[in-house]
Amino acid sequence: MVENLQGLVQQDRMWQRLETLSGFGATADGGVTRLALSREDRAAAAEVGRWLEPLGFSHRIDSAGNHFWRYHNGLTGPAVLVGSHLDSVPNGGRFDGAAGVVAAAEVVQVLVQSGLELRRPVEVVAFANEEGVRYPGGLMGSQALAGRFADDSLLDSQDPGGVSLRSALADFGVPRPSLLAARRDPESLAAYFELHVEQGGVLEEAGAPVGLVSGITGLYQARLELTGRSGHAGATPMQGRRDPMMGFAQVARKVEAVARASAGAVRGTVGWVSASPGAENVIPASVRFSIDVRSVDGASLDGALREVYTELERVCAERELSFKVLTEQHTEPVILDSSLRSRLESMAQRVGVEHLTLPSGGGHDAMIMQSVCPTAMVFVRSRQGLSHCPEEYSSPEDLAAGAELLLLGVAQAAGVELG
Amino acid sequence: MVENLQGLVQQDRMWQRLETLSGFGATADGGVTRLALSREDRAAAAEVGRWLEPLGFSHRIDSAGNHFWRYHNGLTGPAVLVGSHLDSVPNGGRFDGAAGVVAAAEVVQVLVQSGLELRRPVEVVAFANEEGVRYPGGLMGSQALAGRFADDSLLDSQDPGGVSLRSALADFGVPRPSLLAARRDPESLAAYFELHVEQGGVLEEAGAPVGLVSGITGLYQARLELTGRSGHAGATPMQGRRDPMMGFAQVARKVEAVARASAGAVRGTVGWVSASPGAENVIPASVRFSIDVRSVDGASLDGALREVYTELERVCAERELSFKVLTEQHTEPVILDSSLRSRLESMAQRVGVEHLTLPSGGGHDAMIMQSVCPTAMVFVRSRQGLSHCPEEYSSPEDLAAGAELLLLGVAQAAGVELG
Repeated sequence: MVENLQGLVQQDRMWQRLETLSGFGATADGGVTRLALSREDRAAAAEVGRWLEPLGFSHRIDSAGNHFWRYHNGLTGPAVLVGSHLDSVPNGGRFDGAAGVVAAAEVVQVLVQSGLELRRPVEVVAFANEEGVRYPGGLMGSQALAGRFADDSLLDSQDPGGVSLRSALADFGVPRPSLLAARRDPESLAAYFELHVEQGGVLEEAGAPVGLVSGITGLYQARLELTGRSGHAGATPMQGRRDPMMGFAQVARKVEAVARASAGAVRGTVGWVSASPGAENVIPASVRFSIDVRSVDGASLDGALREVYTELERVCAERELSFKVLTEQHTEPVILDSSLRSRLESMAQRVGVEHLTLPSGGGHDAMIMQSVCPTAMVFVRSRQGLSHCPEEYSSPEDLAAGAELLLLGVAQAAGVELG
Repeated sequence: MVENLQGLVQQDRMWQRLETLSGFGATADGGVTRLALSREDRAAAAEVGRWLEPLGFSHRIDSAGNHFWRYHNGLTGPAVLVGSHLDSVPNGGRFDGAAGVVAAAEVVQVLVQSGLELRRPVEVVAFANEEGVRYPGGLMGSQALAGRFADDSLLDSQDPGGVSLRSALADFGVPRPSLLAARRDPESLAAYFELHVEQGGVLEEAGAPVGLVSGITGLYQARLELTGRSGHAGATPMQGRRDPMMGFAQVARKVEAVARASAGAVRGTVGWVSASPGAENVIPASVRFSIDVRSVDGASLDGALREVYTELERVCAERELSFKVLTEQHTEPVILDSSLRSRLESMAQRVGVEHLTLPSGGGHDAMIMQSVCPTAMVFVRSRQGLSHCPEEYSSPEDLAAGAELLLLGVAQAAGVELG
């Protein structure tokens, strides 16, 4: 029965543990600097071990630096994995990643202490180098687990202090570092669950403490340059101008228009712009700007991009401008497992937790894990959408509400009879 | 007869003199750095004296640093003034200002050597500190002559090297520096003529070597800030965004639209923009940008500004943004003397010089002088509209064509019978 598991999540214990983790790499202004594979990162993982190992969890670190704590109680077969990451950006927040590991530990502790019968092993994971700050890429541990690396050349990359990833992994406790060797047989995993702070303002706006993540949005980001012809603002007639600023204004409006027309499927943002030479009385010779277009739906994303680029070409033809793509990245959207999500949804309704189904705008290990096993993700409301900064905050109540839902999802996936 | 004065302007002498002036403050890449009241500026003025004083011109420097060379031949009454300025911007061009002084010297030399009877004194002027680079403001000498200064407080301003304007004027040869005392009785002047390089591309585009300036455009320049609400590009839905970048795009387009709709009366430019925080994946919290709106017609300028500000307010209401005017300057347009201009026009037709009547987008001493006496201005075609840079160029032929027209205008104003 669902009721068997209600009220068991200990909000104070979770909050206390988050406080403890915040001590590893605490900064003066209340933030955290716990770079991937650093001493602080290792100390945080050791702390998690002190919570779980006394309960009968066995610890293992894989060759990519992922920490696992497994509880099998004699059970074999695919395990239910739950976790997040412990590394942070420089002077980041106390919740990003750590909240998910604390919630995972809480969930498995409640489960194994509940006396309910598990039919599958459960494992807590702390993925290595999710942030990709100290070493490039990010989502490193989950990508290694998913077998995404073709070789181990990344191990030679160095942090700004000249320490190679190979040597950092060795210091982190990995005897024979390898991203290739960290691939895990998908058959060994039944499901993956991750709780994470939203890092956005949707839940706050909706007044919901938790969210169910429908998918990770596909992302197109580019820096573009429009080039026209400079001229004196006073001496150059309007007719015959080749003004890239006005071309930019049209393209920027189009980015917004296609997103608005998508009825929520697409988000479009122009966050950066720079005109050259950039003087009050000079028509710019060129304007550089960024576009950021996202969607959980691949076809919507592609359609939006086609419209934006069609407009860009039209504007260039109309104004005699040229454009250049300076940088560009494009990742496909990932839809998380809909059956896990609908089960979480019905459980949220049963226990009466205000919730929302929403896409994640940012990347998470869950987006990699979905390619390995059915994956679900629970968001917890963030204050003012702030993240990657000391002001990042989610309340103890909201974190507990998220953990309650996570507990039900993990329990069901582990074969606990919830009635 | 007009014919009496044709073919007397010596193109080679003018070109040679321009070359000579370019030597005072020549830079390595062919430009000129001849800051106001500098040693180079003084040397250039002395050079002009060497051309004119042997012809019977008497030299005078007023208390604001304006140089005058006067030829009266016993005549009294109001004089015809012709000239420009000798100071330059740092690494500026060889033509801006200097071309007008060379042409003025050429015109009066031809006149006094022509044997034609002058009925009015003629004077050549080199106005002080037109550029306003070393000391603030610009158009200093002409403003002093026009009595625009209420006191002499500007004399205490210092250049970046700590030299006060007072001390620079003393070094320049002014015994008792005063901007106030340089005011000249308007009754002493019959007309002012100035030749200047266009610094724009209109004449080049039209294939005309010379232009008759209808007026100096009124100018409105402002730096504005639009403030909205920042947010993550992925996590923030389109609905409810308060995005100042999109508000900016609308206002920028409006600046262009009102100018385009004015049928040539208004020019509108957005030359500078900066978004904060300015990251690809962040909706900006604020966008700062410039607007530059100009017209020779005051009512058109005011009307255009009303439309732009109406749009700004509409956009702010629609998008829940706020705006702030960070800096602002507004100068009224000046219409130059229409009777002098139409006389120049009919003379240009008589001698068969291709010409155009056009407004000046930039400020000139002529715009101040129009408040003192009837003023006319002749533009000479610039190459590619380039100015304030070493690439600034006007051909010897075009300069001579401008000087021919200037000669006819000055001669007529000086009472020479042109038939």
